Amino acid sequence: MALITVGTMAFDAIETPFGKTDRIVGGSATYVAYAASNFVKPVQQISIVGYDFPTEEMDELRSRGVELEGVEIVPDKRSFFWSGRYHEDMNSRDTLVTDLNVLADFDPKVPASYQGADFLMLGNLQPKIQLNVIQELTKRPRLIVMDTMNFWMESAMNDLKIVLRYVDMLMVNDAEARQLSGQYSLVKAARTIMDMGPKYLIIKKGEHGAMLFHGDNVFYAPALPLEDVFDPTGAGDTFAGGFMGYMASTGDVSFENMKRGIIAGSALASFCVEKFGPTRLKEITQSDINDRIQQFKNLVNFDIELS
Amino acid sequence: MALITVGTMAFDAIETPFGKTDRIVGGSATYVAYAASNFVKPVQQISIVGYDFPTEEMDELRSRGVELEGVEIVPDKRSFFWSGRYHEDMNSRDTLVTDLNVLADFDPKVPASYQGADFLMLGNLQPKIQLNVIQELTKRPRLIVMDTMNFWMESAMNDLKIVLRYVDMLMVNDAEARQLSGQYSLVKAARTIMDMGPKYLIIKKGEHGAMLFHGDNVFYAPALPLEDVFDPTGAGDTFAGGFMGYMASTGDVSFENMKRGIIAGSALASFCVEKFGPTRLKEITQSDINDRIQQFKNLVNFDIELS
Repeated sequence: MALITVGTMAFDAIETPFGKTDRIVGGSATYVAYAASNFVKPVQQISIVGYDFPTEEMDELRSRGVELEGVEIVPDKRSFFWSGRYHEDMNSRDTLVTDLNVLADFDPKVPASYQGADFLMLGNLQPKIQLNVIQELTKRPRLIVMDTMNFWMESAMNDLKIVLRYVDMLMVNDAEARQLSGQYSLVKAARTIMDMGPKYLIIKKGEHGAMLFHGDNVFYAPALPLEDVFDPTGAGDTFAGGFMGYMASTGDVSFENMKRGIIAGSALASFCVEKFGPTRLKEITQSDINDRIQQFKNLVNFDIELS
Repeated sequence: MALITVGTMAFDAIETPFGKTDRIVGGSATYVAYAASNFVKPVQQISIVGYDFPTEEMDELRSRGVELEGVEIVPDKRSFFWSGRYHEDMNSRDTLVTDLNVLADFDPKVPASYQGADFLMLGNLQPKIQLNVIQELTKRPRLIVMDTMNFWMESAMNDLKIVLRYVDMLMVNDAEARQLSGQYSLVKAARTIMDMGPKYLIIKKGEHGAMLFHGDNVFYAPALPLEDVFDPTGAGDTFAGGFMGYMASTGDVSFENMKRGIIAGSALASFCVEKFGPTRLKEITQSDINDRIQQFKNLVNFDIELS
C-alpha cells in the first residue's frame, strides 16, 4: 500500500539549550519519509528543493524506499530555509529566519506513477496547495490526513475550511486545535473541528502525548517520559510519518488500528528528539523501534477488575 | 485495613469562569475522606475545626465510615478558610484570602483507637506536623504517602527533607516536583526526589494525567478528557483519597497495584471537578465509579503485535 507524502524538504538551523547547528536537512516531508519508511514502501514524496539540497540525502531516502519522482529540483534557486531558537522549556520557540526560496513557487504535480496510492499525508502547507494535490488524484485515497498551523488560520481560513471537507483526519497541536475551534476544552474543540469535515482528529500535546477523537470515542497515548528533549524539531512530522507508515503497512483504517498507529508514531517521535534534526531517525533499527513500542506498553498498561 | 488521613477540614470560597460560591466545605482531609470511603472503611480522620464546621457534614462523613475521633473541635475559633479565583485555563489560580484560624494551633494527636493502621495519608501541612504524626504511630504503616507544596519548600525546606526520609511516597504536581528537585525534566526530577527518601513518587499533571515513578519504572495515566472542568478545587486531594482508599482496600502495596490505585484516584478526581467543592463526590455510586474506570480502560487500552 503506497503512501504519498506532500511537504517541505528544507534546511534548518536550530538553537536549543543544549547546543546549536548550522544548516542541517529538515522539512516536514523529510521527517515523514524517514519515519514512514520504517513501516511501508514505497513512500512517494512530493516536494520542491533548490540546487543546494544534498544528493547524498536524496540517495539515503531512495535507499529506504522513498520515491522522489515528485520532488521538483529548481536549478537556480535555494531550498527553503528555517532557523529557530527553542526556549528553556522546549515547548515554545522563536523563528529567527524564514527564507521561502523555492517554496514560493511550489505548485506540486502528482506523477503518474504515484496515482492509485491508498494513503495521503498532506504536510503543513498553504491550504490551496493541499487541495490541489487532492484534486489531482484520479482515485481517492482510503485515508487522507492533513497537518496545518496557526499561520493559515490567520491568513487563509476560508481555504483551510474547504480543504477540511476533503480530508479524513486533521492532525494539529493543542494550541492549533483551540485556535481553529475557538474552544478551550479539547473535547469541545474536537467536536467543533469534526463538524468542519474530518471524521478523525489527532491533537498532539508534545510531552503530554496525543489524543485521537472519532465521534464519541477518545484514545489518549501519553508521550514517553524522556530524560532530555535534545531537539524537538520535526517531532510532529515524525509522529505523522510513523502513524501513516503504520496505517499504510497494515492497510487497516479502523479506529482500533489508528490507536496502534499513534503508538508507532509516538515511538518514532521519541527517537527524533534525541539528536539534532533527523539524525537519530537514520540510526534506528526495527529492533530499536520494537523496544520502544514495548516501553509504551509498559508505560500505560494496567489491569483492573471492576467490583 | 484502616487508612489514617491527616489534613485540613475547612471552608472555601471559590470563583471560576463558570460561577462562584460562598463558603462551602472543603479541606484536604475532607476530600480524601469522601474519596477513600468509596473503597475502604474505616477512614480515620485527623484534623481540626472550629465551632462553625457543620454538624451535618460530620454526620455525612460518619455515615460513610469515616471516624472523627481524631478531629479536634475548637469551641471558640473559626475553621480554616481559603478563598481563591481560577484563571480561564483552570490550571492556575490566585489566592484571595487565607484565614488560618484554628489551623494555627493544629498539633494533631493520634487517638489510641487509630493505632495499628496500615495506611497513612499525610495531606499538605507544615512538615513538622507531618513528622510528628509519623512519630506518634506505635506501628509503622505499610504505606506512608505525603503531599506538600511550594510554600514549605520556600519556608521549611530542611524540615521537609527530614519528613521525606520517613515516607514511602511523595505526591506532588509537576511544578512542585520541578521546584523541589531543581530539575526541569520530570524524569530527572523524579530521580532526584527519590534520592531524597521516597521510593515512590506520583507527579500530578492536572488535565494531562499523573505519572508514577519507582526506580526505573514509570507508569503514565492520562486524565479523562472532560468537556468542562467546572471547579478543580480538591481534585488533587480526591485523587490521593481514591488512590489510598484503593490501596488500603486491596492491602497490596506493589507497583502493579499502585497503577490500579492511580486509575481509581483519577476516576474519583474526574467526578470531583464536575461540581463545586465535594458536591459531586457525595452523589456518586459504586456503579458510577465502575463506569468511569471502564472509560479509563477504553481511553488508554491498545493492543499491538511487535513484528
